[in-house]
Amino acid sequence: MTATSTLRTAGDLPRTGRDARRAIRSGEFTGQTAGVAPGYVQGNLAILPQVLAADFLRFCQLNPKPCPLLATSSPGDFGLPTLADDLDIRTDISRYRVFRRGVLVDEPTDIRGHWRDDLVVFVLGCSFSFEEALVEAGIELRHMTLGVTVPMYRTSIATAPAGPFHGPLVVSMRPMTPENAIRAIQITTRFPAVHGAPVHIAKPELIGISNLMQPDYGDAVPIKENEIPVFWACGVTPQSVVAIAKPEFCVTHYPGCMLVTDRRNAEFAIM
Amino acid sequence: MTATSTLRTAGDLPRTGRDARRAIRSGEFTGQTAGVAPGYVQGNLAILPQVLAADFLRFCQLNPKPCPLLATSSPGDFGLPTLADDLDIRTDISRYRVFRRGVLVDEPTDIRGHWRDDLVVFVLGCSFSFEEALVEAGIELRHMTLGVTVPMYRTSIATAPAGPFHGPLVVSMRPMTPENAIRAIQITTRFPAVHGAPVHIAKPELIGISNLMQPDYGDAVPIKENEIPVFWACGVTPQSVVAIAKPEFCVTHYPGCMLVTDRRNAEFAIM
Repeated sequence: MTATSTLRTAGDLPRTGRDARRAIRSGEFTGQTAGVAPGYVQGNLAILPQVLAADFLRFCQLNPKPCPLLATSSPGDFGLPTLADDLDIRTDISRYRVFRRGVLVDEPTDIRGHWRDDLVVFVLGCSFSFEEALVEAGIELRHMTLGVTVPMYRTSIATAPAGPFHGPLVVSMRPMTPENAIRAIQITTRFPAVHGAPVHIAKPELIGISNLMQPDYGDAVPIKENEIPVFWACGVTPQSVVAIAKPEFCVTHYPGCMLVTDRRNAEFAIM
Repeated sequence: MTATSTLRTAGDLPRTGRDARRAIRSGEFTGQTAGVAPGYVQGNLAILPQVLAADFLRFCQLNPKPCPLLATSSPGDFGLPTLADDLDIRTDISRYRVFRRGVLVDEPTDIRGHWRDDLVVFVLGCSFSFEEALVEAGIELRHMTLGVTVPMYRTSIATAPAGPFHGPLVVSMRPMTPENAIRAIQITTRFPAVHGAPVHIAKPELIGISNLMQPDYGDAVPIKENEIPVFWACGVTPQSVVAIAKPEFCVTHYPGCMLVTDRRNAEFAIM
């Protein structure tokens, strides 16, 4: 993974979830979290007003592959004790995005000034967890090799709607040999809490992707002659769905600046 | 599956392993065993002289995906108590093939006349077990729909050799949508004792298959535009390897006339 803090090298990235949150909270760490606290679960963030919480929870329940819910809070509660004892969601992410009626209004490093007593926090699993398991199995991940962001695509597959939340499934793509694709399906099946098994393989045109070299998000990566594209449901899906819904107020993490928790990826393996 | 006994309809096929063996032993049942005793493990047969047994065992150990060994006997022993208490391998298969130095010399319904005190029995898992699990999951198997034999291909993948046993991996092919292929990988991963997960998907040219419509064994089946070919290691591999080795003496089952055991397919699911 790429070391993304400008002040640090990979060698002195925070090594545990707790270290990472402390460094982020104090302003000592300001970058993206790829490569931070290896082995610890990182998560996607969405914060919504209570009036939308039930619909969003239902959306997650209906669409568990793009929206694997790791934790949610009571209204106004900025702790998430199942992810870490000391967690304060208002300060423990290195950069946030604040939206009002779908318009980006702020990109702060702290949201205490935006906090409201009716806000509900949602943390969703992220691909870092299963990517770690793939790398441990010796499977090359092209976007890591190239030091770029994984390519992501809007598909022709509709998510199951809930209240104002609806929109296309967004997928990430990793090229692999057929043998590695089979192994990757086996490995990621063990991690349903962090997107789980791929949703598609081999035939992008069947899910509405006409050109793999033109991703909708992230960077294009080359696919070799002996490889097939492997597609996973992506955590950008709920962000894209929230953008369509244009809620009165919403906070997400800044791309790449994930919540680092005290839970271990290995805890989420079902076998 | 196709009902293959000329004297029976699907409705009165033997329902348990014990019923099947009794009907076969008595000569009442003479056909192929697809559809017989649903839920019970069926196996491929190889019988070799003791002098070759260690090499063949090592071949199976080196190549577990095409040669998933379910049981083997002591020299001269025609029982296989781990597969069924009452089993007599000399009478309990509906038709055999007897080879001398690689030449087919007999296709009897009973091999008591061929039996020798130095013969060792090998029973290998067969695709019927995992196909049952795929059908239960609602996945269409094209060769079953069409009532033909699954298409099989010699590949450019070499098996790991042991003594005189060597030769190409033979694979069977089932066309599926990408989504069903992912599900099929998950399901068959649960059954390592009966070939397990696919060995290849999507790109037949990478494993030396130039024309899917010209299988080396079995029947060609159509592949739809929205499907990919999914390849499993096949129990024809050890038969093909034995044919190359031309042992002084060898017995196999007649194609489609498998050993029906008392073990349940569900027993072999690892999770």
